Amino acid sequence: MTEVTSLRPGMRQLARSEALWRLSSVPFGRVVLTKHALPVIRPVSHILDGGRLIIRSPGGAAIVHSAASEHGSVLAYQADDIDAQARTGWSVVVTGLAELVGDPDEAEPYLRALDPWLSVGTGHIIRLEPEIVAGFELLPGG
Amino acid sequence: MTEVTSLRPGMRQLARSEALWRLSSVPFGRVVLTKHALPVIRPVSHILDGGRLIIRSPGGAAIVHSAASEHGSVLAYQADDIDAQARTGWSVVVTGLAELVGDPDEAEPYLRALDPWLSVGTGHIIRLEPEIVAGFELLPGG
Repeated sequence: MTEVTSLRPGMRQLARSEALWRLSSVPFGRVVLTKHALPVIRPVSHILDGGRLIIRSPGGAAIVHSAASEHGSVLAYQADDIDAQARTGWSVVVTGLAELVGDPDEAEPYLRALDPWLSVGTGHIIRLEPEIVAGFELLPGG
Repeated sequence: MTEVTSLRPGMRQLARSEALWRLSSVPFGRVVLTKHALPVIRPVSHILDGGRLIIRSPGGAAIVHSAASEHGSVLAYQADDIDAQARTGWSVVVTGLAELVGDPDEAEPYLRALDPWLSVGTGHIIRLEPEIVAGFELLPGG
């Protein structure tokens, strides 16, 4: 499912495949969750594996606990590459059910790939199935 | 109030005033809200006025309605300037009560200052009182 966002002239909506490709082209983004009913946002590094978003759970156990719950937890993840001077670039948001990768053998290559340089990373891997993918590009001169 | 985030060696926590100064040094960030119980994140441009964050409400009426409610609405806002290659930069998150600036005379200079180049902007201005300010800097070589 691709969410149609409101666009103005000078913005182009990205198709799902293009949005995921852009997301895979940058090393980090921002994970959004709810903690004690308050919105929380943290920059973390990510990779994509078979179209699924993989992050190392950031410091603080809330996200791990909610992802580990029986039905998972809905997370949003945003990445962009925007040149504010030129007013060009793109932004992508994926939303979907997050799950904890509990199998150590399955988690191990992800833990190696996701060096926690950007945030305090735990030893827990979160995998998100992008259900809603929304993205836009700012067109030059738009 | 400044939230103490988990930091690893090589990260330095920003004092509230420094975090707000960094925020004011960039033209855009990402607003986080909850819509139909789902987390939503959108890039928007911002300014700071007297220590308060001013944004133009992004396309979609949800944020306007929740900010216009009697008790306002808690929003989180994130901005960063991160060089993934050099692994340097900073990130700031402010969280607080958002309110709709309903007085047209008060809103007018903000609407002029906030050209909605980054998102479909409405004619509504949202003002956020930063209650929790959290920020870190990635130290070179850290």
